[in-house]
Amino acid sequence: MHSFPSHHTVERLERERVMASLIVPDIFSATEDAETLRKASEGWGTNEKAIIEVLGHRNAAQRKQIREAYEQLYEEDLVKRLESELTRDFEKAVYRWILDPADRDAVLANVALRKSHPDYHVIIEISSIHSADELLEVRKAYKLRYKRSLEEDVAAHTTGDIRKLLVGIVSAYRYEGEEINARLANSEADVLHDAIKDGSFNHDEVIRILSTRSKAQLRATFNRYQEDQGTSITKNLLVEHPDDFLVALRTTIRSLNDPSKYFVKVLREAIKRAGTDEDDLTRVIVTRAEKDLKEIKEEYYKKNSVSLDQAVAKDTTGHYQAFLLTLLGNNEE
Amino acid sequence: MHSFPSHHTVERLERERVMASLIVPDIFSATEDAETLRKASEGWGTNEKAIIEVLGHRNAAQRKQIREAYEQLYEEDLVKRLESELTRDFEKAVYRWILDPADRDAVLANVALRKSHPDYHVIIEISSIHSADELLEVRKAYKLRYKRSLEEDVAAHTTGDIRKLLVGIVSAYRYEGEEINARLANSEADVLHDAIKDGSFNHDEVIRILSTRSKAQLRATFNRYQEDQGTSITKNLLVEHPDDFLVALRTTIRSLNDPSKYFVKVLREAIKRAGTDEDDLTRVIVTRAEKDLKEIKEEYYKKNSVSLDQAVAKDTTGHYQAFLLTLLGNNEE
Repeated sequence: MHSFPSHHTVERLERERVMASLIVPDIFSATEDAETLRKASEGWGTNEKAIIEVLGHRNAAQRKQIREAYEQLYEEDLVKRLESELTRDFEKAVYRWILDPADRDAVLANVALRKSHPDYHVIIEISSIHSADELLEVRKAYKLRYKRSLEEDVAAHTTGDIRKLLVGIVSAYRYEGEEINARLANSEADVLHDAIKDGSFNHDEVIRILSTRSKAQLRATFNRYQEDQGTSITKNLLVEHPDDFLVALRTTIRSLNDPSKYFVKVLREAIKRAGTDEDDLTRVIVTRAEKDLKEIKEEYYKKNSVSLDQAVAKDTTGHYQAFLLTLLGNNEE
Repeated sequence: MHSFPSHHTVERLERERVMASLIVPDIFSATEDAETLRKASEGWGTNEKAIIEVLGHRNAAQRKQIREAYEQLYEEDLVKRLESELTRDFEKAVYRWILDPADRDAVLANVALRKSHPDYHVIIEISSIHSADELLEVRKAYKLRYKRSLEEDVAAHTTGDIRKLLVGIVSAYRYEGEEINARLANSEADVLHDAIKDGSFNHDEVIRILSTRSKAQLRATFNRYQEDQGTSITKNLLVEHPDDFLVALRTTIRSLNDPSKYFVKVLREAIKRAGTDEDDLTRVIVTRAEKDLKEIKEEYYKKNSVSLDQAVAKDTTGHYQAFLLTLLGNNEE
């Protein structure tokens, strides 16, 4: 019906313009960049610094143009070329970064699902934090790449209540207006509380609410819950030995309720862990650099009294470190 | 990623060009049509014949242009104008017809849900028979019109297993390639058979399969079921006093498996019923006239040895009859 972007999309893009951490130059030539990248990966060894210098300062649209220019100049797929040249954490990060955002999420979702114990939180992030149309783009990209639907693979790799929750949120196409129904927030806060109090959990009702209501409506419901109970729903869901479903449920609520706060927690956990969780660290920085990483950095500092840049610098090394710091908005090395 | 129509969409449009029953003239003027419709609804009484003559021979894109021309000429919404002029079955049919297809489905879904006993089969039709992108357009139109998501309203108006089934299929964004996985068809035919044999029904597995697999894959599974069991899954689901869920399950399988056959059955039931079910009759003719009503007519004749046109002519009267027959492809009155 509408082929022009909705005002929700316009608002989102405006917000991203302000809250992205990525630094992009005013002047840009896809052909020159393609040539630079070619040179960087030719001869003996790879010039990672040159790769970071170029790709670490290009947005999604520009990266796409570079891939196209590269293909035209050298009749070769740049993604494939880089895959074969780069190694380990740095390679992974560059490979994630160079993909179109929706296609990248499709890859992240697929990798998360194919683990013997699937990374549910990656699926939850993609489902809960994206706008309705962004999530849809991921589902499109997934079908194009894997010839199956995302919900089909989510269902095939999970069971029981987790499956119901994940298939529900990954299939959602939520209303995005700000209107809320206060009476509904009230009654559904009660439904959630009854389900939690019960211990037995009326999972179906909880899943229905989380997978169909608009985010504005859900926030109203969570606020109402806190007012009525004197404690937040996520605190109420904290138990000593939570099962997978309970963890997934909390993650869903947290990422629906406050994405920045959620990402700060993921980053903190990734850095804190002995040896650093590069998957989580790379994913959050790569996927948010063009969106709201500046905001996440501010939240991170408020919460940890150390800047995210410092924390990343301390826990990583080499080209991987340089690349992450570039995406975090550090212009000099 | 792709902004041009996929080859699935191109194929679908080509098929609709051949299988539509609607007859559209080569020459067309939106302004003239708007003027004709204005005259037809002015003065004493309404000239229904003129309305049928014009609207009964215009496709969705043309009807949209007419609405726009009308709005420009008379600063009035044609849909609202017609609503106030036309009465009963004829009015309803014209009102349904004049809307954009996706918007019309949104209205049909909403009306079906708001009944005290929801018309599940309307939701199932919209979910199972449309292509992935058509269903998505309906979900978009629904959000635009009702400021809630379709799955949200489906969930709010249903409970239990029916809710799980309907929310699942209405949220699907199925893969549409023709590739099938024979091993999977085999194992999931067994899953379906075990669930049915069981009596207790492992609903979750059945719902997962029906709401996530591609239609080609599902047809392979249903075929395999029939081979293994010597009887079709829909026959196996026939019991003396089926509950709502069982009926909905059969309807889902039938509409996923063979839309034309399904519609023939709906039309037959609507006409057979004492007094005719105008809701079903109008819906099928209005929604399929631009798509595959010619094919449905052929199937109808094969199955009932009487043409659909004759059956409709026998069971309806007046302008309502004339309008339906026009959409069925009858040029003269």
